[in-house]
Amino acid sequence: MNHGTVSPEAALEQLRDLPYENLGFARIDHHRALRHSLPEVVYGRGKTVEQVVAIVQRIADRSDRCLVTQVPDQYYQAVRTVLPDAVYHPVARAITYCRQPEPLLPGVVLLTGGTADLPVAEEAAVTAELMGHAVVSHCDVGVAGIHRVLDLLPDLRSANVIIAVAGMEGALPSVVGGLVDVPVVALPTSVGYGANLGGMTPLLAMLNSCAPGLAVVNIDNGFGAGYYAALINGLAHRGVPADG
Amino acid sequence: MNHGTVSPEAALEQLRDLPYENLGFARIDHHRALRHSLPEVVYGRGKTVEQVVAIVQRIADRSDRCLVTQVPDQYYQAVRTVLPDAVYHPVARAITYCRQPEPLLPGVVLLTGGTADLPVAEEAAVTAELMGHAVVSHCDVGVAGIHRVLDLLPDLRSANVIIAVAGMEGALPSVVGGLVDVPVVALPTSVGYGANLGGMTPLLAMLNSCAPGLAVVNIDNGFGAGYYAALINGLAHRGVPADG
Amino acid sequence: MNHGTVSPEAALEQLRDLPYENLGFARIDHHRALRHSLPEVVYGRGKTVEQVVAIVQRIADRSDRCLVTQVPDQYYQAVRTVLPDAVYHPVARAITYCRQPEPLLPGVVLLTGGTADLPVAEEAAVTAELMGHAVVSHCDVGVAGIHRVLDLLPDLRSANVIIAVAGMEGALPSVVGGLVDVPVVALPTSVGYGANLGGMTPLLAMLNSCAPGLAVVNIDNGFGAGYYAALINGLAHRGVPADG
Amino acid sequence: MNHGTVSPEAALEQLRDLPYENLGFARIDHHRALRHSLPEVVYGRGKTVEQVVAIVQRIADRSDRCLVTQVPDQYYQAVRTVLPDAVYHPVARAITYCRQPEPLLPGVVLLTGGTADLPVAEEAAVTAELMGHAVVSHCDVGVAGIHRVLDLLPDLRSANVIIAVAGMEGALPSVVGGLVDVPVVALPTSVGYGANLGGMTPLLAMLNSCAPGLAVVNIDNGFGAGYYAALINGLAHRGVPADG
Amino acid sequence: MNHGTVSPEAALEQLRDLPYENLGFARIDHHRALRHSLPEVVYGRGKTVEQVVAIVQRIADRSDRCLVTQVPDQYYQAVRTVLPDAVYHPVARAITYCRQPEPLLPGVVLLTGGTADLPVAEEAAVTAELMGHAVVSHCDVGVAGIHRVLDLLPDLRSANVIIAVAGMEGALPSVVGGLVDVPVVALPTSVGYGANLGGMTPLLAMLNSCAPGLAVVNIDNGFGAGYYAALINGLAHRGVPADG
Amino acid sequence: MNHGTVSPEAALEQLRDLPYENLGFARIDHHRALRHSLPEVVYGRGKTVEQVVAIVQRIADRSDRCLVTQVPDQYYQAVRTVLPDAVYHPVARAITYCRQPEPLLPGVVLLTGGTADLPVAEEAAVTAELMGHAVVSHCDVGVAGIHRVLDLLPDLRSANVIIAVAGMEGALPSVVGGLVDVPVVALPTSVGYGANLGGMTPLLAMLNSCAPGLAVVNIDNGFGAGYYAALINGLAHRGVPADG
Amino acid sequence: MNHGTVSPEAALEQLRDLPYENLGFARIDHHRALRHSLPEVVYGRGKTVEQVVAIVQRIADRSDRCLVTQVPDQYYQAVRTVLPDAVYHPVARAITYCRQPEPLLPGVVLLTGGTADLPVAEEAAVTAELMGHAVVSHCDVGVAGIHRVLDLLPDLRSANVIIAVAGMEGALPSVVGGLVDVPVVALPTSVGYGANLGGMTPLLAMLNSCAPGLAVVNIDNGFGAGYYAALINGLAHRGVPADG
Amino acid sequence: MNHGTVSPEAALEQLRDLPYENLGFARIDHHRALRHSLPEVVYGRGKTVEQVVAIVQRIADRSDRCLVTQVPDQYYQAVRTVLPDAVYHPVARAITYCRQPEPLLPGVVLLTGGTADLPVAEEAAVTAELMGHAVVSHCDVGVAGIHRVLDLLPDLRSANVIIAVAGMEGALPSVVGGLVDVPVVALPTSVGYGANLGGMTPLLAMLNSCAPGLAVVNIDNGFGAGYYAALINGLAHRGVPADG
Repeated sequence: MNHGTVSPEAALEQLRDLPYENLGFARIDHHRALRHSLPEVVYGRGKTVEQVVAIVQRIADRSDRCLVTQVPDQYYQAVRTVLPDAVYHPVARAITYCRQPEPLLPGVVLLTGGTADLPVAEEAAVTAELMGHAVVSHCDVGVAGIHRVLDLLPDLRSANVIIAVAGMEGALPSVVGGLVDVPVVALPTSVGYGANLGGMTPLLAMLNSCAPGLAVVNIDNGFGAGYYAALINGLAHRGVPADG
Repeated sequence: MNHGTVSPEAALEQLRDLPYENLGFARIDHHRALRHSLPEVVYGRGKTVEQVVAIVQRIADRSDRCLVTQVPDQYYQAVRTVLPDAVYHPVARAITYCRQPEPLLPGVVLLTGGTADLPVAEEAAVTAELMGHAVVSHCDVGVAGIHRVLDLLPDLRSANVIIAVAGMEGALPSVVGGLVDVPVVALPTSVGYGANLGGMTPLLAMLNSCAPGLAVVNIDNGFGAGYYAALINGLAHRGVPADG
Repeated sequence: MNHGTVSPEAALEQLRDLPYENLGFARIDHHRALRHSLPEVVYGRGKTVEQVVAIVQRIADRSDRCLVTQVPDQYYQAVRTVLPDAVYHPVARAITYCRQPEPLLPGVVLLTGGTADLPVAEEAAVTAELMGHAVVSHCDVGVAGIHRVLDLLPDLRSANVIIAVAGMEGALPSVVGGLVDVPVVALPTSVGYGANLGGMTPLLAMLNSCAPGLAVVNIDNGFGAGYYAALINGLAHRGVPADG
Repeated sequence: MNHGTVSPEAALEQLRDLPYENLGFARIDHHRALRHSLPEVVYGRGKTVEQVVAIVQRIADRSDRCLVTQVPDQYYQAVRTVLPDAVYHPVARAITYCRQPEPLLPGVVLLTGGTADLPVAEEAAVTAELMGHAVVSHCDVGVAGIHRVLDLLPDLRSANVIIAVAGMEGALPSVVGGLVDVPVVALPTSVGYGANLGGMTPLLAMLNSCAPGLAVVNIDNGFGAGYYAALINGLAHRGVPADG
Repeated sequence: MNHGTVSPEAALEQLRDLPYENLGFARIDHHRALRHSLPEVVYGRGKTVEQVVAIVQRIADRSDRCLVTQVPDQYYQAVRTVLPDAVYHPVARAITYCRQPEPLLPGVVLLTGGTADLPVAEEAAVTAELMGHAVVSHCDVGVAGIHRVLDLLPDLRSANVIIAVAGMEGALPSVVGGLVDVPVVALPTSVGYGANLGGMTPLLAMLNSCAPGLAVVNIDNGFGAGYYAALINGLAHRGVPADG
Repeated sequence: MNHGTVSPEAALEQLRDLPYENLGFARIDHHRALRHSLPEVVYGRGKTVEQVVAIVQRIADRSDRCLVTQVPDQYYQAVRTVLPDAVYHPVARAITYCRQPEPLLPGVVLLTGGTADLPVAEEAAVTAELMGHAVVSHCDVGVAGIHRVLDLLPDLRSANVIIAVAGMEGALPSVVGGLVDVPVVALPTSVGYGANLGGMTPLLAMLNSCAPGLAVVNIDNGFGAGYYAALINGLAHRGVPADG
Repeated sequence: MNHGTVSPEAALEQLRDLPYENLGFARIDHHRALRHSLPEVVYGRGKTVEQVVAIVQRIADRSDRCLVTQVPDQYYQAVRTVLPDAVYHPVARAITYCRQPEPLLPGVVLLTGGTADLPVAEEAAVTAELMGHAVVSHCDVGVAGIHRVLDLLPDLRSANVIIAVAGMEGALPSVVGGLVDVPVVALPTSVGYGANLGGMTPLLAMLNSCAPGLAVVNIDNGFGAGYYAALINGLAHRGVPADG
Repeated sequence: MNHGTVSPEAALEQLRDLPYENLGFARIDHHRALRHSLPEVVYGRGKTVEQVVAIVQRIADRSDRCLVTQVPDQYYQAVRTVLPDAVYHPVARAITYCRQPEPLLPGVVLLTGGTADLPVAEEAAVTAELMGHAVVSHCDVGVAGIHRVLDLLPDLRSANVIIAVAGMEGALPSVVGGLVDVPVVALPTSVGYGANLGGMTPLLAMLNSCAPGLAVVNIDNGFGAGYYAALINGLAHRGVPADG
């Protein structure tokens, strides 16, 4: 009977490099910026303004980048009192903070099916950019006007990863997935009404796509799509050593 | 207080022209062939072979066309004993009978997203053809290979009505609807698995299409789509008198 | 191996006739009025008032008809500043603009199951009328008082296409579909409560209708039903040349 | 603080008159025939043939009527060995046993929307008849042929209670409910396909009926509908004393 | 081939006795008070205050009873200006008007599972009482305190029909149905949270009751339950003539 | 045939010890404090402030502990006028009253997946503490930072029962259940968005846990989880006599 | 910033005591018998007979108890060849193996709503008994015959924990929960049809119970309910030291 | 007004490089192997054995790799007659054909939550390997035994992309996503029962993961997950030129 292949020392090491700070109502992973590509992200919904400010302040003490999603302007006003350099993105309803911005890596292309998808798309773009990746965005290229998609073929084919945002019937990622040979991150939105079921219809449609090369994130999860695209684009830029 | 604008005589007339025949387990509308474009259609599922044979026999006594849907070959064998000219369509699982076929009217185009949609598509085609309409079919033109759809543009633009059949994410009708200016009948199929939910996903997607000019029938309802397309194509051929 | 039946020149032509205008947050199809029966329609929900005004202005620069759906009166007030001839339909919550109205073609009949279905029905009527079709409307003819439906038989039988609007159990299209021999556009509404599930119940009921000759649009999609009925009525009036 | 209005003696009495027999795998209410209008009914599905035979035997020892629902013929063959007078109803898949049949009370009318609803309808009729009520049945009177319903108006208006059975879109009870002034028992069936969702669509439609005077039982619950109609018809025949 | 058993004259008669008044946005059945036990009921939700007032005024012109459901107090204030004798029931949110009240017939018992079910229960009671039936109500007798139900046994057993109102898990009708031998009208409410799904859970539970003698109305449909119970109690009081 | 093993006297006794007080709109179980571990709990949602005050006053007359859940501060202000010692817990939105607090029994540990789960978690803690049990809480230990869970192993392994609170994907109880050998009460919350479906996703996930030793309560049902954990911890402290 | 309260040595210890054996297609926790109350349980569905035999053999090598659930008799025949003392429970479809049975601890009571719930109930009983706990079972005590539940009050009140098994509307746990002051494990079954939705209805009903003291396991999860009840009964028997 | 940025010549070029072969029942993309990383994949379900053989033969004529998914052994026997070098993978139920295998690129790690997930996991592995990527698989590392996951940390941290396969509650991807900084492809399976809803529960759970760095494919879509992971790993190996 084997006891596992990890030595006790290694296990110890693994636990040791994962400290965190306990604020009582939240536990912050300061080392996440090392392990992950971004420090602890603060999902704003369901948190009080005081909680958000306290968390942001602690993160900023030890990290030079920070992201708060899904907060109204009043949260930003409070955050700004402790972090004057923070920036508010009103369409995305996100706060970012980045002490030492570096040049952005190209390779992420983002398409939206309609104008009303913009807030979700913006959250994705803000996230990927804070992680160091440039995002080329094209808005309102729904499949009911397929020539608008085809017009973007050169852009689509130069991307390392594509974020395809759509509500309604969510068909955009299928069409895009059939035109390119890179990973497509399908991002359904709650744009629609009636049998749209709050975005469940485009979500289900994207999961059932007949195009290969698609994976899907939660409805309106702009953050998740931007983060995932950034991870993929980062891999593409990092490459693999010769003996990889 | 008005008593309605229909005179008693007219109301009487309306009731009088709708007789039917009661077999106990079924009531057959013989005048439906006049009122509707097709005599009473027999939906086979849930009926015994004896019931189907009895109904078909009575219809054939008074009508020169007849359609039975969703029956296996053994039902056909039994029907043939009373109606030797009946034809079986094995892919569609339908029986048709047409004493005096007339030339078919052009104008109906049918597309399927995949090969597995064929049985449903065939039921639609069999129905429209029995009603007197020619159906031009193109199989396996899913949106993940958009060039296969674009290649059919000349055909699509010459149609009076298009039946777009698709399972999976059901995006085909949206793309087609954006390319043409005629009514598209969207026909979802239960082809798919997992989050396809037995065809609910393409059904919902089609209902949420961002393309105008679409209406939807029930999952796997080839009969309904073929019937509806035939009604529309009939209107196009009939036209409207100058004083219409 | 065939390369498709469309010649490169034809493909080129197809792409060329589909230009559009990019506003950044929206791409407008100006040629849609040729290809489709109506210029780009603006679905108002989820768009800011500034976006709607900008889009409408560009459309009006090049087209003599325009439709904005699902907007409150304040959007209309803003649109009016750039397009003084625009008209607001408060029940439908739609803005229309039509520089050179032509005589309306008869043939569309619209029924609603109840009084509360009026806003959705109005959107359908406004749409079809802007596309050049007269709509004869009858309100509150639910199936629980079947004599109210029967009273309308003469009207129903003179139509080329019927829009049947209903919430609750959505039975009206089934009853109407059994009385006529023309296409019925079934339009479910979210009128109801409890197990109505926001209109899913009438939607599902209409999809399962035992009457042939029905196709269904999304819940509360008055625009889609009006557009679809207009396409069909247009076909009926246009007719097909002798060699069609 | 009050202790309730029932005296200890009365409570005792209530408990005492509810004895039962414990077979280990089942507890049989022998006094149910007094309290209820029918002895313990045996729902066959999920029970072994041995369990059904044992339960039936005990009931028959003390009661002169008995009903087993949802069992195949082989269960009947086994029951017949212990209860030779038992009758099998193959369409309803039910076994009944009635030692001393009495004249049936008129007043129950039953309609089905289609031929495939017959098994469920039969279960309802068998149940009501075993409880002493005559059932007048009309098959295949779906709302898509409304004249077939109207033709039955004299029958409908002479009933004390009506069972309306329908699958598909389940519109029959709404139409019937609008024509009469007696309670309608709406019985949805699983007849249909696709977006019928195993009968959920007619069930939901019936619950949302715009006609008053309707109440609904579970999908395919012929027993429940027959039982309920029998209770109502029993009340109508029993009447209420002058001081009621 | 038979033409139906109803003579043309009879059919005519049937149509003739169903006149109505067309207000444009609504069609009012004035003869409903004869055919049904109650004049046209006005379901207030989705109607403007002007529409409600207009409809009520026309009904009151020809009928001595009237019911408006689901309206706030401001609707009542407007109705009162044209119908000073109208009464508002604030818990039920209903307006009633009854010119010549008669003695109420006993026989309807109503139970609620909890205090929060009161508004729905009140609507049921108001409806039945306007139709001439006395309602004995017991509030907050949920099954988690079964002794509270048992305490009411004498009342339950003297009823002709019982309305059992419950939200949460909706178990009350099952328990009541097992204790009595009269029809139980199960009325689910949207009281609850989380997996209650807006009342779908008690609705589904009631439909699946293991007790016979239950039928179910829509979630929060107090009107429907009261109406149905009144119909049944009316039958019980009317009785059936000897040759019934 | 046996009449049940309970003697009439015992049955009587059982009914007798369950008296209650009828306020008309509510029935209060005063003996519940004996039978259950807590007097009648008042679920505040759907009750008016007057109803809550009246119920609380009656309970306080005869009991020394009381709990009102899901009420805003204004309800507390009203309760305080009749029960000055009542305490309001703003995060949990609960009112408690405890005349003679006793030392709390250790053994309940509570974890939350995120900060936004706090209101639900607090309701659980308040409930268990009012029932006499100390609750050790750890906030924001989601499974995406598994080291935060592992860090709590000593605490987890000293517990008699663990309440695991989580929204989003609801994975926390599975991970905890695999680490301990005591009952875990899984408490899903409605924290999340999109395909979270108002908490249905974590609820379903917890029900499908691959870890044994889990049972689940309703979404956001902090009261139920705290109550259940208190029952279990009470059993652990009470133990069983030698002849158990 | 704190690094967590667990020392590296302790963390090491925790990892060290969790070894497992890797069979390639499965990883077996041999120490689970220490940590948990039962060795690794083999969920049979989806595993081949060869996989089950291999896993069972390895467990039996190091443990004296073993449980395989959801397997047909043919799996048992294969297991018996390597483990001759294994026992098959045909109703529960489970295999158990127990080298040194000890006296069972009393305190678990199990009720089923109907006869068809027996297979699920048996799985619960087999599980609890293999873990060392005696289970007192009462079958067919559905709430529609409430006197059958009340008759069991002495048994219910002597239990430490109660498993309440029910399909259909799932009301049994609510009624039981209101009668006792110990934890009730609510176990929904898929017994039912139509709107039962494969057991979702009783599951949802149990989660929404108005009785406190209930927690719920997955549909048909007899193993989970038996395991959970055993954990609770074990706590009750173990008690807590004076300084607990 | 701009006409799009793509020149007519480029558009032409784009259409020209997408030829296909029309078999009537299927259209095959031969150039897909260039555009995509894999030639046309044949989804076997819903296709007849004759159709599959015909399609495979045409693909093999022009490509050196081919994949058929979801077919039983008998399909393989037929394929082998035309393509003797084809290989059948019985667990995955897939046929592969690869004329010139090349060395596989490392970087894909695959985990399954349980043994029953193997068929889906195998399909993913077969797909990725046919596309040129080595897959390191670890089976049965469910989160209920978290030490089994932690033991694999060195493997997980050396991956470029991880496929996490799980049924039941689907928590594995969340835990894995929190431990690594590379994209995780979450693959839900239909393994489970009851409230698992055919895999909808793990699907929903994965979409709601609190861990960033996750995207999800359809239930049981092994092909899609393997394909997506191969795309990502390909990007990582290809890297981006210095001026990327």
